[in-house]
Amino acid sequence: VSAAATGHLTRGPHPLLFELLYEPQLADERRHLLPLLLRVDAAHVVMLADQGLLARAVAAALLAHNRDLAARVAGGEDVLGSPPEHRGLYLLYERHYIAELGPQPGGSMHLARSRNDINATLSRLRLRYELHGLLGHAVELLDSLASAADQHAGTIMSGFTHLQPAQPTTLGHYLAGVSSELTRSVEGLDDAMAVVNRSPMGAAAGFGNALPVDPGQVAGLLGFDGVIDNSADAVASRDYAVRVLGDLAMLGITLTRFATDLQAWSSRAYGFLTWPDDLMGGSSAMPQKRNAFVLENLRGQAVRPVGSLVSTLLGMKSVPFSNSVEVSGEATAHLWPALAAASTALRLARLLVERLQVDRARMASILGDRQTTATALAEFLAVRYQLPFRAAHEVAAGLAHEGALASPTDCRSRLEAALEALLGRPLPVALEEVAQATDPQACVLAAEHGGGPGPDSVRRQVAGLRARTEALHARRRQWWRRWQEADQRLRGSTEAAIAGGQARSAG
Amino acid sequence: VSAAATGHLTRGPHPLLFELLYEPQLADERRHLLPLLLRVDAAHVVMLADQGLLARAVAAALLAHNRDLAARVAGGEDVLGSPPEHRGLYLLYERHYIAELGPQPGGSMHLARSRNDINATLSRLRLRYELHGLLGHAVELLDSLASAADQHAGTIMSGFTHLQPAQPTTLGHYLAGVSSELTRSVEGLDDAMAVVNRSPMGAAAGFGNALPVDPGQVAGLLGFDGVIDNSADAVASRDYAVRVLGDLAMLGITLTRFATDLQAWSSRAYGFLTWPDDLMGGSSAMPQKRNAFVLENLRGQAVRPVGSLVSTLLGMKSVPFSNSVEVSGEATAHLWPALAAASTALRLARLLVERLQVDRARMASILGDRQTTATALAEFLAVRYQLPFRAAHEVAAGLAHEGALASPTDCRSRLEAALEALLGRPLPVALEEVAQATDPQACVLAAEHGGGPGPDSVRRQVAGLRARTEALHARRRQWWRRWQEADQRLRGSTEAAIAGGQARSAG
Amino acid sequence: VSAAATGHLTRGPHPLLFELLYEPQLADERRHLLPLLLRVDAAHVVMLADQGLLARAVAAALLAHNRDLAARVAGGEDVLGSPPEHRGLYLLYERHYIAELGPQPGGSMHLARSRNDINATLSRLRLRYELHGLLGHAVELLDSLASAADQHAGTIMSGFTHLQPAQPTTLGHYLAGVSSELTRSVEGLDDAMAVVNRSPMGAAAGFGNALPVDPGQVAGLLGFDGVIDNSADAVASRDYAVRVLGDLAMLGITLTRFATDLQAWSSRAYGFLTWPDDLMGGSSAMPQKRNAFVLENLRGQAVRPVGSLVSTLLGMKSVPFSNSVEVSGEATAHLWPALAAASTALRLARLLVERLQVDRARMASILGDRQTTATALAEFLAVRYQLPFRAAHEVAAGLAHEGALASPTDCRSRLEAALEALLGRPLPVALEEVAQATDPQACVLAAEHGGGPGPDSVRRQVAGLRARTEALHARRRQWWRRWQEADQRLRGSTEAAIAGGQARSAG
Amino acid sequence: VSAAATGHLTRGPHPLLFELLYEPQLADERRHLLPLLLRVDAAHVVMLADQGLLARAVAAALLAHNRDLAARVAGGEDVLGSPPEHRGLYLLYERHYIAELGPQPGGSMHLARSRNDINATLSRLRLRYELHGLLGHAVELLDSLASAADQHAGTIMSGFTHLQPAQPTTLGHYLAGVSSELTRSVEGLDDAMAVVNRSPMGAAAGFGNALPVDPGQVAGLLGFDGVIDNSADAVASRDYAVRVLGDLAMLGITLTRFATDLQAWSSRAYGFLTWPDDLMGGSSAMPQKRNAFVLENLRGQAVRPVGSLVSTLLGMKSVPFSNSVEVSGEATAHLWPALAAASTALRLARLLVERLQVDRARMASILGDRQTTATALAEFLAVRYQLPFRAAHEVAAGLAHEGALASPTDCRSRLEAALEALLGRPLPVALEEVAQATDPQACVLAAEHGGGPGPDSVRRQVAGLRARTEALHARRRQWWRRWQEADQRLRGSTEAAIAGGQARSAG
Repeated sequence: VSAAATGHLTRGPHPLLFELLYEPQLADERRHLLPLLLRVDAAHVVMLADQGLLARAVAAALLAHNRDLAARVAGGEDVLGSPPEHRGLYLLYERHYIAELGPQPGGSMHLARSRNDINATLSRLRLRYELHGLLGHAVELLDSLASAADQHAGTIMSGFTHLQPAQPTTLGHYLAGVSSELTRSVEGLDDAMAVVNRSPMGAAAGFGNALPVDPGQVAGLLGFDGVIDNSADAVASRDYAVRVLGDLAMLGITLTRFATDLQAWSSRAYGFLTWPDDLMGGSSAMPQKRNAFVLENLRGQAVRPVGSLVSTLLGMKSVPFSNSVEVSGEATAHLWPALAAASTALRLARLLVERLQVDRARMASILGDRQTTATALAEFLAVRYQLPFRAAHEVAAGLAHEGALASPTDCRSRLEAALEALLGRPLPVALEEVAQATDPQACVLAAEHGGGPGPDSVRRQVAGLRARTEALHARRRQWWRRWQEADQRLRGSTEAAIAGGQARSAG
Repeated sequence: VSAAATGHLTRGPHPLLFELLYEPQLADERRHLLPLLLRVDAAHVVMLADQGLLARAVAAALLAHNRDLAARVAGGEDVLGSPPEHRGLYLLYERHYIAELGPQPGGSMHLARSRNDINATLSRLRLRYELHGLLGHAVELLDSLASAADQHAGTIMSGFTHLQPAQPTTLGHYLAGVSSELTRSVEGLDDAMAVVNRSPMGAAAGFGNALPVDPGQVAGLLGFDGVIDNSADAVASRDYAVRVLGDLAMLGITLTRFATDLQAWSSRAYGFLTWPDDLMGGSSAMPQKRNAFVLENLRGQAVRPVGSLVSTLLGMKSVPFSNSVEVSGEATAHLWPALAAASTALRLARLLVERLQVDRARMASILGDRQTTATALAEFLAVRYQLPFRAAHEVAAGLAHEGALASPTDCRSRLEAALEALLGRPLPVALEEVAQATDPQACVLAAEHGGGPGPDSVRRQVAGLRARTEALHARRRQWWRRWQEADQRLRGSTEAAIAGGQARSAG
Repeated sequence: VSAAATGHLTRGPHPLLFELLYEPQLADERRHLLPLLLRVDAAHVVMLADQGLLARAVAAALLAHNRDLAARVAGGEDVLGSPPEHRGLYLLYERHYIAELGPQPGGSMHLARSRNDINATLSRLRLRYELHGLLGHAVELLDSLASAADQHAGTIMSGFTHLQPAQPTTLGHYLAGVSSELTRSVEGLDDAMAVVNRSPMGAAAGFGNALPVDPGQVAGLLGFDGVIDNSADAVASRDYAVRVLGDLAMLGITLTRFATDLQAWSSRAYGFLTWPDDLMGGSSAMPQKRNAFVLENLRGQAVRPVGSLVSTLLGMKSVPFSNSVEVSGEATAHLWPALAAASTALRLARLLVERLQVDRARMASILGDRQTTATALAEFLAVRYQLPFRAAHEVAAGLAHEGALASPTDCRSRLEAALEALLGRPLPVALEEVAQATDPQACVLAAEHGGGPGPDSVRRQVAGLRARTEALHARRRQWWRRWQEADQRLRGSTEAAIAGGQARSAG
Repeated sequence: VSAAATGHLTRGPHPLLFELLYEPQLADERRHLLPLLLRVDAAHVVMLADQGLLARAVAAALLAHNRDLAARVAGGEDVLGSPPEHRGLYLLYERHYIAELGPQPGGSMHLARSRNDINATLSRLRLRYELHGLLGHAVELLDSLASAADQHAGTIMSGFTHLQPAQPTTLGHYLAGVSSELTRSVEGLDDAMAVVNRSPMGAAAGFGNALPVDPGQVAGLLGFDGVIDNSADAVASRDYAVRVLGDLAMLGITLTRFATDLQAWSSRAYGFLTWPDDLMGGSSAMPQKRNAFVLENLRGQAVRPVGSLVSTLLGMKSVPFSNSVEVSGEATAHLWPALAAASTALRLARLLVERLQVDRARMASILGDRQTTATALAEFLAVRYQLPFRAAHEVAAGLAHEGALASPTDCRSRLEAALEALLGRPLPVALEEVAQATDPQACVLAAEHGGGPGPDSVRRQVAGLRARTEALHARRRQWWRRWQEADQRLRGSTEAAIAGGQARSAG
C-alpha cells in the first residue's frame, strides 16, 4: 500500500496528478503556508487539551514537536523533504509527526477539524499578512503624494480636460486630487482587513462539530477578531478575496490614470516633468532617447489585479456552496500575484513621485496666452456687470476665439466693443480689472472655493488627506500589535502545555 | 448659426454624432436624469442667491420656472421635446429656460458651475436611489432566507463536498450559510452608500471656484452627507462605481453557487426539491418535462455585474485624471444595467426561496446507509477509546468501505474485530453506543459547536443574520428619511426664494 | 386552465417571471427574431412535406399562413399582440396558428423539431446578418484609412516611442500600421462567418431525430453552408459567440490605441491635428474650449465588446453541456450590444479619419532639432567608417546630448573630435554627408526597407492593405448573394408547396 | 560611469527598478528567450554580412561566439551570470560579446535593428513553440475523446436538459458532442499559428530601415512564413496574443461544461461514472470519502486563460500605437501562464477520459420509467395517426404525468382512452407498436437523423472528428518540419559565414 493512500483509497495519486498538481502546489505552500500551519496546529492542540478532548501528555508531545519544527522552519530548513509521492502539504505534515512520534501521539491532532477549515484559515492568515504589507506600501505612497502636493501647492500649471488647456491650477492641486481617489481605495482595503481577519477553525469539514471545541480560543490564539458563525460559510466562502481584489483593481486603475498624465507631461511636447537618469531608459538603437519607460511598467503592474479579480469571480461561479478545491485552491490562488503586482505598482509610483523633477517655467508657459482664464473673464462679466452667465460666456468665447485674452489692453477694447454690441450702450471697462481677471496667477490664488487650487484650499485638502493617512498608519500598527500579542499568547500557551504535559508524564 | 453652436464652435454636431451619441443618450437621460437635474439646478440657484451671486429676482424667476418644469416632468410631460439638433441634455435644458424666460434671467443659472460637476452629481444621485432600491430587494431575499433557514432547521439532509455525501446536516444550516456570504456583500453595498452620497457640486469644471459658493449648502439641500474635498477628484473620479459593482459581482457569484445546488437537488437524480408549476417550464417537444429553468435565468442575470465591472475598470484605464466623457459618460454607463440585472437576480432568488417545496423523505433517504456518519464514528473511537484520530479514521474507513455502517450490529462486530487487530487485545463495544454514533439524526442534534447544524447553533446563526438584516433595513429607512427631509428643505427654500424674489420685484 | 399551460404544467408562469423574463425578452425577440422564425418555420414545413412527414394539404395551409404573416410583419404589423400571459415567442407563435387555423393544421408544424434547435438557428441567423452589417462598417473604415495613408504618405512627422520623439516617419506610415492590425481583426471576423453560418435544424432537443428529416434541405433553404454534425453540439454550443467577440474586442482595443494617439496629437501641446467644428465639443463653462471629445466616446464604445466577451465566457462556465437557457438565452445575449457598440466605434473612427485636418508645419517642426536623426547618424558612422554600431551609437548619443545635431556644421566639428578621441587619429568628415545623414526628410525618403516609411515602401503597404480590403468586400458581397438566392429558393418552395397542397385539396 | 549606463544616460538603473523589474524579468528571459535570441542574432548577422553591411570577418567572429554560447546555453550553462546591475537581457547579451571580443567586433551586431523588433520576434518565436506544444496536448485529448465516443457509442443513457431526463441517448453521442465544440477551438488555435509565425525583424525601432536589409532572408532562416509588412505594426501590435487567448478561453469554458457533467454523473445520486483510486481523493476527516476532486482542479485551470485574456486586452488599452513596454513586456506576459494552465487542463481532461469507468447498469436504470420516450410516443401518434404534433404532445404529456409510460399495456389502454376523447371515436392501438415507440433502446437505434445518437450517425460523427484531428496532427508535424529545416539552414549559413570569414581573415 502506498504511503500516500488514505481512507479507503488504496493507491497514491497518479504520476500526472503529482506532476501537474501536488508538486507545484507544495512548492508554494511549503514557503507560504507551512509556517502558518504550524501556528494553526499549535492553537488547535492547545484548545483540544484545554477542552479535555486530548490527553495533556499527548498534547504536550505534539506541541513540543511543533515548537521544534517551527524553529527549524524559521531557520530555513526544509523539514518535510521532497517525498516522491504525497497528497499535499497537510497529509505530509501529519505523516511527519507520525513518523517522528509514532501513531500515538503522532496521529492524534486531527480530531475535530478538517483540511477544509485549516485551509480556509491558512488562506486568511496569509492574506492578512500580505495585505498588511501592501497597506504599508500604499500609505507610503499617500505620504509621498501629500508631501509632493504640499511642495507643489504653488507650482502653477494649466489644468486640462479632454487634454486641452482648461483653467489655471497647480500641480499640488492635481496631486491632491489623485491622492483623494487613491485614499478611498486604500481605506477600502483597510476595511477589508476586518472581514478577512476572522477564524474558520471549528467548522471542520463545513458541518461544525459534535465535540465541544472552543473556536473562540483558537481564534484568539491566532490573532483573529472572532469566528465565522456558520460552518458552511466558513469553508465555502472566499468573498473576502473579491473584496480585496476589487479595491486593488480600482487602486490600480487610478494609478494608470496618474501614470498617463505623468507620461504626457514628461513627453517632449509638454516638457513639464522628468526624472533623474536612474529612472529613465535609453534605447539600444536611438542614441538621443531618454524614456520614462517605468510608467509603462507601472501601468502594466497596476492593472494586474483586474485580471485576477475576473479569474477569482469566474473561478467561483456555479461551484456548489461547500468546500471545493475549485474555490479554495484554484480561485483563491489569483490573490497572491495580484497583491505582488499591486505592491510593485505602489512602490514604483512612490519612487516616481518622490524623485519627480518639475520644470516650473515650462509649466507656466502654457498659460502665457491667458486662454485658460476665459472662464474667469466670463465670471467677471457676470458678477461685475450682472450679465447672464451664458451671455458673458459667449462674449468671452468671442475674445478667446480672436486670441484677445493674451493682452489686457487688447482684451479691454474688444470687451468694450462686445458689451456695447450686447447691451446697446457703451460700458467702460477698467484695464486693471481686466488684467486681474485674466491673470492666471490671480485665478489660482482666488480659487479657494469648491475644493479648488487656491493655496488655503489645497492646504486644507492636504491636511485632510494626511489625517486620513495617519489613521491608516495607526490601524496598521494596531493590527500588527494585536497579532504580535496573539503570537505571544500562543507561545505562552504552548510552553505551558508542554510543561504541564511533561510534568504529568513525569508525575 | 446653428442653435446647437456654443462657445466658439460655429456649427452644431455632425449628423452622425447626433445619431450615434446625442440621440441615444438623451433618451436615457430624459428619463433618469432630468428629474434629478431639476433638483440640482434648484439647489444651486438657491445657493447663488443666498451667496449674493445672483440677484434675488433673477433667482426667483429661474426657480419658478424650475418648479413648473418639475411638476410637468413629474406628470410625465416631455418638456424638452425632440429638437432636430442638440448637444445633450444640459444645453437643451438651459436653452429651454432662455427660450421661455429670455436671455435674462434664462441664461443666468450656470454661474460657478459646469456640466462636469453637474454630471458627477447626477450620477451619484441616480446611483443612490437605484442602490437604495436594490438594497430593498437584497434585504427581502435575506429575510426570506432567514425564514426558510428557520423553517428547515430540522430538515435533515446529507451535506455534500465535491458533490459526494459528506456529513449529516440540515437544509436550514445550508441556507444560513448561503445567507451569511450574501449578507456580507449586502453590507458592503450598504457601506458603499456612504461613499456614493457626497456632493461634487462646487467643483465646477474640476478647478473649483473663485466665486464664494457654498457647496455645503447645495449638498445639504440635495441630501448628501457632505462634499468632495478636492475639485479634481470630484469630477474625475468614479471609484464608487467599482465599489458598488464589486459587491454586486460577488453577490451574483454567491447566487450562482446557490442556484447550482438548487438545480442539482431539484434534478430527478436527487429529487430533494421542486417548485409549483408556475415557476417551472415545460418543453415544446418533450411532453414529460418539468424544468426549473428559472435557475438558469437567475444565474445568467446574477453574473452580469461581473461584465459591467470589467467594462467599467477597462473604461477608466489610462484616462487622464480630469473630467472625461470616457469615464463620466461611457464607463459609468455600465452601472445601470448591472443594477437592473442584480435586482432581477435577487427577486428571482427570493421567489424561488419562498416557494420552495421540499421532499423531506427523499432528503433523508440519502442518509440511510449511514456512510455520512463515518466521521462521527471515528470521533467516537478517538474520544471513547483514546485512539489517535488517524487510527480511528482508518478503522472507520475500513467499515465504510465494507458498507458496514448501515447496520449497528454489523458495525459493532466489525469494529470489535478492527479494534482487536489494532490494539492487540479484545475490546467490547456497546451496541447502543455504536447505534448512537452512527445515527445521522443524532449527529445533527449533537453538532452544536463550530457553527454546525445543531438546532441551537442554527438558531443562533439565524438570529445573528436577522439582527444584521434588521440593521440594514434600519439604515435604508434612515437614508430615505434623510433624502425626504432634504427634498422638503429644497422645496421650502425654493418657495421662499420665489416669494422673496417676487416680493422684491413687486417692491 | 391557463392559455400558457403546456405539457403537464397546469399553470401559466408566475407574474414575476412574466415581468422580469418573458415580457422583456419578447419585446426584443419580436423585433429581431420573429422575421427569422417565419423563415425557419417555412423551411422546416417545406422539408417535412417533401419527406412525407406532413400531409401536403396541411403543409400548404401552414405555409399560406406563414406567407401572410411574413408580409404583415414586414409591413410593421404587430401580429402577435400583447397577450397578458405567455411563455415566450415560439409558443405564442404556434398558438397564433392554432387560433387562426384550428388545431389541425395549426398545431402540426412542430414535428421533428424543438425550440432548442430553432433557437440555436435563430441566433446564428441573426448573428450572420448583424456581423455582415458590422463588416460593412469595418471595411469602410479600412478604405478610409487606406486613402488617408495614401494622402499622408508624404506628411512628415516624428515617430514616437514611449511618447518621446524617436525617428522621422510619415503620418501615412503610421496610419498604414494601425490599419494593418485592424485588418487582421476584420479578417478574423470574416473567417468567423464560416463558423457561424451552419444550421442546427434537425438536432431537435439535442438528441437528433428518429424521423427521416432532411437537415441539408433546411440548411440550403436558409442559406447556411451546411449542418452541425452532432445534435448535442448543435444545441449546446455557442462558441462562435466567443470567436466573434474575441475579434471585436481586439478590434476595439486597437481603436483605443489609435484614438489615444489622435487625442495626444490634437492636444494643444502637439497641435498636429484637428477636426471641423461639427466634430468638436465646447464647454458650458470654459469659453475657449474646443475638445475632441468624440475620441472619448470612441474609446468608450470600442471597449464594450471586452465586457461582453467576459460576460459570455462567464455565462457559459460550468453549464451542463446540453441545451440551457443560461447559454442560449443569457450568455448569448451579450453579443448584440457588443456588435452595436463596435459598429458605433467603427463609424466614429471612420468619420474622424475622413475629416482629419493636419497641420503639416506643426508636425514637421518637432523634427527641427534633428534629434530624431541620431540613429541615422550612428548608422552613417557604422557603415561609412566601419565603426562598431555600439561605438557609433555612443558617439551619436554624445552629440544628441549636447544638442549638436541641429546644425550640420556644429555636428561635423564635434563628430570629428569624437572620432579622433575614439580612433586615436584625425578623420575628416564631409559636411554634406553629415547634413544628409541628419536631414529628417532624407531619412524618411531612405527608409524603404523593413516596412519603413519610405514612399515606395508605404505605397506597397497600402496596396497590400487595399487588396486585402477588396477581398473582404468581395466575400461580403458573396455572402449576401448566397443568402438572397436561398431566400428566393425558400419563397419558390413555399409557393410551390402552397400551390401543390391547394391543388391536392381541390382535387 | 556605471556599466549599465547607455546612450546619454549617465547612471545605471535605480536599485528599486533593479529589484522590481530587471531582476525578475531576467530570470524568466534567461530561460525562455536567450536560446531564441541566439538564433535571431545569428540570422541577423548572417543577413548583414550577405548584404554587405557587416565585414565578413566581423560577422564570422560574432557568429563563432554565438555558436559557442548557443552550445553552452544548450548545455545548461548560465553564460550571462548574475551581474549586480544591468538593463535587461539584450544589453547584457551584447555587453557579453564586447567583454569577450572587444568593442570590435563585439559591438557590431546591432546595426539595422533594435530591441523593439528583436523583442517582437522573440515573443512570436516563443509563442509558436509553446502553442505547438499545447496543440499536441489538445489533439491527444481529441484522440482520446474519439476513442471513448467510439467505445461508448452503444452505452445507453438518458440525455438531460436543464438537468432533467430528456430523451434516450448514448454516452458516445455526448462525448462526440463535447469533442465537436472543442475541435473548433483547437482548429482556431491552429489557424492562429499562421498569424503568429511571421517575422518582425527589419522593423528596427518601428520605423524600418534606411540600410538595405533583407528581412525575408532573416525570416526564412528563422522558419517564419514571411514578414510583417509595416514596421509600426511589427513592433506595436500583439493582436495574435488575443487571438490565441480567445481560443484558449473558449476551449477552457467547454472543458468546464464537460467537467460539470462528469462531476454530476460521478456523484452518488447519479452513480454513472467513477475513476480508479489514483485519480480520486479521500478526506482527512471523513473516512468514507472518495472525491473526484481532479475535476475541480481541471475547471480551475481551464478558466485561467479568461483572466489572461482580460489582462492582455486591458494591458493594451489606450497604449500609444508604437513600441511600448506596456504592451510588449507587460500585456504579453499574460500569455505564458495561460498556455501552461490550458496545457494542464487538457492533460487532466485526457487522463480522466482515458481512465473513465462507466456503470452501464446505473446509466440505463434512469431510463427504466420510459418517461424519456414521451417525445417518441408523441411522434408515433403524429405520424401513425396524423395527429397534429401539438395534440399528440398533449396526449403524451398526460400519459407521462400519470406515469403510464413505464408499462406498454397500461400505456396502450390510456392511449386508446385519450385518443377516443380527442377524436370522438374509438381507435385501436397495437400493443407492440406502443411497446416499440416507448422502448428507450429502440429510440436510440432509430435516432439516425439530425446528428442523433443512432449507431451509424455517431459513427459518421466520430469519423468526421477523427479526420479533422488527423488534419491537425498533420499540420503540427508540418510546422515542426519547417522549423527544423530552417534551423538547419541557419546552422549551415552560420558555419559557412564562420568559415568564409575566417578564410578571409586568414587570407
